[in-house]
Amino acid sequence: MERLKAIIQYDGTNYAGYQIQPNGNTVQAELEKALSKMHKGRKVKVTASGRTDSGVHALGQVIHFDTDLNIPVENWKRALSSMLPQDIYILSVEQVGRDFHARYDAKGKEYRYFIWNDQEPNIFKRHYRYHIKADLDVAAMQQACKYIEGEHDFTSFCSPRTDIKGDKIRLIHEASVQKEGEELVFVFRGSGFLYNMVRILVGTLVEVGRHDRDPGEIPMIIEAKEREAAGKTAPPQGLFLREVFYDED
Amino acid sequence: MERLKAIIQYDGTNYAGYQIQPNGNTVQAELEKALSKMHKGRKVKVTASGRTDSGVHALGQVIHFDTDLNIPVENWKRALSSMLPQDIYILSVEQVGRDFHARYDAKGKEYRYFIWNDQEPNIFKRHYRYHIKADLDVAAMQQACKYIEGEHDFTSFCSPRTDIKGDKIRLIHEASVQKEGEELVFVFRGSGFLYNMVRILVGTLVEVGRHDRDPGEIPMIIEAKEREAAGKTAPPQGLFLREVFYDED
Repeated sequence: MERLKAIIQYDGTNYAGYQIQPNGNTVQAELEKALSKMHKGRKVKVTASGRTDSGVHALGQVIHFDTDLNIPVENWKRALSSMLPQDIYILSVEQVGRDFHARYDAKGKEYRYFIWNDQEPNIFKRHYRYHIKADLDVAAMQQACKYIEGEHDFTSFCSPRTDIKGDKIRLIHEASVQKEGEELVFVFRGSGFLYNMVRILVGTLVEVGRHDRDPGEIPMIIEAKEREAAGKTAPPQGLFLREVFYDED
Repeated sequence: MERLKAIIQYDGTNYAGYQIQPNGNTVQAELEKALSKMHKGRKVKVTASGRTDSGVHALGQVIHFDTDLNIPVENWKRALSSMLPQDIYILSVEQVGRDFHARYDAKGKEYRYFIWNDQEPNIFKRHYRYHIKADLDVAAMQQACKYIEGEHDFTSFCSPRTDIKGDKIRLIHEASVQKEGEELVFVFRGSGFLYNMVRILVGTLVEVGRHDRDPGEIPMIIEAKEREAAGKTAPPQGLFLREVFYDED
């Protein structure tokens, strides 16, 4: 048996999220189905760095699984990709130590969130962008982002539906937003993220961009440590898991 | 009764083309269903500048229809858009003379065709780009484009499944291709286009880009006046009807 680590992309539009669940198609189920076919019907468990919600996309999700197949590692990318639907793609596969764990060993993650900020919708990006018609004050949102960076208890930015048992202190290395044409591109890079944290951060920043909140309110929202203090949860389709960081990187 | 002209966009991914047909959902059927609801169930016939095939998109298709509803013309855009699915959007609605005809009055059209030219696919653009891994010689394709411009009999670039009864002479004002990052963007602007013409032109230009054909073969392909002389038909998902031109423009 050897352990393989793969970096994968998926379009979350047609999935009920990453993680296997009783109702609805999931990315994990597609991966395990493809691997099971390759392993003559035997079940192969896939472990990811974390789950993503329904409609959320991945540019660089990381998974691991164990195999006893005699496939040279350089052929795995093509072999596995060819078994998967068009909306899941294998970027790379490498052999790792038997103790590598995609979730426990993850040292951090980067998410991106995209807003289509124009009077007119872009129907071709409707599954990949959050459409906001109103002019947003990008400078005010950038100012608010500065308060998010650093180590904080992010309880206010965590969905109460979380199953996290430990503390909600996370270290955010970068929180930023830039205007690129009709789009706003948010970057969030940190040690870890709570359930719905990026979407609640974006929803709150949008309220700052609309002048419904002052950038200076962010420290108070953090301090409150209750979900009600923060803004709405932005919709899933603008969110992309961009990269997962490990020590060996 | 007044006649309205509308400029519309649609994502052709989930449609069996523009035109109503017995099997499969079509853009025209969605438009007529929405208009019928607005007209208390009465049938409203919609006429477009031309049809588009299954999977082909529109950035600026033009339609006309007649109505006796008492809606101010400036409210029509929002009223009709709100009745349509997310993949069809009304860009503008204006009142025109009772003799305006979206198809017969069209003086020309512009199409764009997009290729995703990279080793790796882009799963987020799989419905909107033709993916080609091989390096394409853009300069050779540009040279070939020059032979397409002008007035020619384009029989070689017309699907034999056409129902065109007149001649196949068309005037092409612009045929060009540019590299923009990982994408190749083709522009075709002309007096009119035959069935599958843009897709056969792109398929043939791609063969030039792969060095399977010489740019200088284009005049001979045109001269042959038979479909077999030209290259393969490029797939539908890269094709966008960009604009329809009328005299009043």
